[in-house]
Amino acid sequence: MTTFKLAALQMTSLADKNANLQTATRLVTQAAQQGALWVGLPENCFWMGPPQQTSNMAETLEGPSVSAMANLAKRLGVGILVGSFLEKHESSEKPYNSSVLLSPQGECLPVYRKIHLFDAETGEHHHESANISPGNSPTCIHTPAGIMGLSICYDVRFPELYRQLSSQGAQLLWVPAAFTWETGCAHWEILLRARAIENLCWLAAPAQTGQHSPNRKTFGHAMVVDPWGKVVARCEEAEGMALATIDLQLLAEIRSRLPALQHRRLK
Amino acid sequence: MTTFKLAALQMTSLADKNANLQTATRLVTQAAQQGALWVGLPENCFWMGPPQQTSNMAETLEGPSVSAMANLAKRLGVGILVGSFLEKHESSEKPYNSSVLLSPQGECLPVYRKIHLFDAETGEHHHESANISPGNSPTCIHTPAGIMGLSICYDVRFPELYRQLSSQGAQLLWVPAAFTWETGCAHWEILLRARAIENLCWLAAPAQTGQHSPNRKTFGHAMVVDPWGKVVARCEEAEGMALATIDLQLLAEIRSRLPALQHRRLK
Repeated sequence: MTTFKLAALQMTSLADKNANLQTATRLVTQAAQQGALWVGLPENCFWMGPPQQTSNMAETLEGPSVSAMANLAKRLGVGILVGSFLEKHESSEKPYNSSVLLSPQGECLPVYRKIHLFDAETGEHHHESANISPGNSPTCIHTPAGIMGLSICYDVRFPELYRQLSSQGAQLLWVPAAFTWETGCAHWEILLRARAIENLCWLAAPAQTGQHSPNRKTFGHAMVVDPWGKVVARCEEAEGMALATIDLQLLAEIRSRLPALQHRRLK
Repeated sequence: MTTFKLAALQMTSLADKNANLQTATRLVTQAAQQGALWVGLPENCFWMGPPQQTSNMAETLEGPSVSAMANLAKRLGVGILVGSFLEKHESSEKPYNSSVLLSPQGECLPVYRKIHLFDAETGEHHHESANISPGNSPTCIHTPAGIMGLSICYDVRFPELYRQLSSQGAQLLWVPAAFTWETGCAHWEILLRARAIENLCWLAAPAQTGQHSPNRKTFGHAMVVDPWGKVVARCEEAEGMALATIDLQLLAEIRSRLPALQHRRLK
C-alpha cells in the first residue's frame, strides 16, 4: 500500500484514567469513520496527573488500558499508536514512558521506551527522570503501510535518534508529545519539520493540549508533515485530529530528486 | 569577551572575480563601520560562474583573493569568514570548497573543507561533486569571541556534522551558503533554526542572493539566529547584511535552563 489516511490525534488527558480512555476511544473511532487506517494518540494519553503518582499509574503492556486500545484497533480495523503509556516492567523499578503500535488486527508490535527524559526549567519545572526509567533502543517497525520509526516528545531535540531510525529505513516518523507551552511556541513546528526534511520522511505528531493541572499546560498543534517539510494537516489548540493522506510514492520521488540520505559521510 | 557584534553578509557573486572582491570589500567595510567585530561572507563569495570553469578559478590559501581579505581584516581589525572559496591544494586534483576564518590580526585560522557536496535535481541541476573534492574533517575554532564551528550550505541538511561541532564545544555555528531558490523557500530558515535550537548555539548564515546566471538563482535571506532559535537579524533578497549582537551569556543561561546537550544518550 503506498497511499493511506492517517490521523494524529489531539486531546487533553487529565488525572482520570477512565475519562481519558473514553476520550481516546471516541477520537480513534471518529478518525476511523473519516477513513484513517492509522491513528496516533499523544504521549501520556491514558494519564496526566501529579508526577509523584507516576509509579502507581503504571500498567504492563497486557494491562487494561493498552488492552482496551488493542480491542478497539481490532474492532475498527485500524492501527493505533499508543503515543505513550506508563509501562510497568520487571526490568526496572521505575516505569518506562513507552509507545506501542497496535496493528489493525489488535496485535502489540515491539514497544519503544523513551530514551531522552525531560529534565528542564523552561517555564515549568520538569524532572521526568525522577519517576521514569529511560529506554535505550531506537525502534523501527515494518508494517504494510511502511516502515515506522518511533520517538516521544523530548526525543525530537536529538537528531541522532532520527538518523538511526532513517538508517533503519524509516519512512514515517512518529513524534507523539506533551510539549510544554513555552517550548512549543518556540520550537515545536521547527523541530518537527526539520526532522521530516533532513530524513526525507513523513512525520506524524499527535499532541496533548491545554491545561492539565495548575502547573502543566501543553502546546497542542498536532500535525502531519510531508517529506519536503510541508505541514499538510494541523490542529490548533482544541481537541481534535490532524488527518492527512500519506503517500509513499511522493517520498520516493523526493528522495530521488534530493538523495541526501545517500550523501551522509559522518556517523 | 561575551558580547560582540557580528554581520552575516549577503551579496550576488558573479563570474567576475575583481568585481566580487570589490563588493566583498565594500560590504565588510560597511559592517566594520557599523561596529561588527566578526563579519561573514557567503559560500563562493569570490566567484560564481560556469561550473566547468571551477578548476581554473581555484586559488591556494595564499592566493590573491584570500590574501586581499586577510589584509582587509588586519586593516579594519575585524575577523572575516571567507564563507567559501575554491581552494587549490596539492592533496587533490579537483579543488575543495573551503571556508577560512581570518582573525582581526589577518591570520588564516584552520581551513574547513565542505564535507557534503550538493548533487541534486531540485528545480536546478547541481552536480557539485563533478568539480569539487569533499573534505572530511569537522572543524571548530577557538577565538577570543567564542568557539566557532564551520560548515557550508548543503552541510546544513546533515545534523550529525553539527553534533560533532557542538561536542567540540561550538558556541557559534557558521553556515555560509548559496542556497537554491526552490530549496531555500522550503527549507532554509527551518534547518538553520533547528541547528541553533538542537545545539543551543548562536548561528550565522551569510548568503548568496539573486540571479547568478540564467540557470542559477539563490535564495538570500542571510540571517543570525540565537540559541533559542529566534531569528534576531535577517536580510530579504537585496545585497546587504544581517547585523546582530552575539551574547554568550544568553547562551549559557539557555543551556542552564534546558541542558539538552547533557542529555545526549546516542552517538
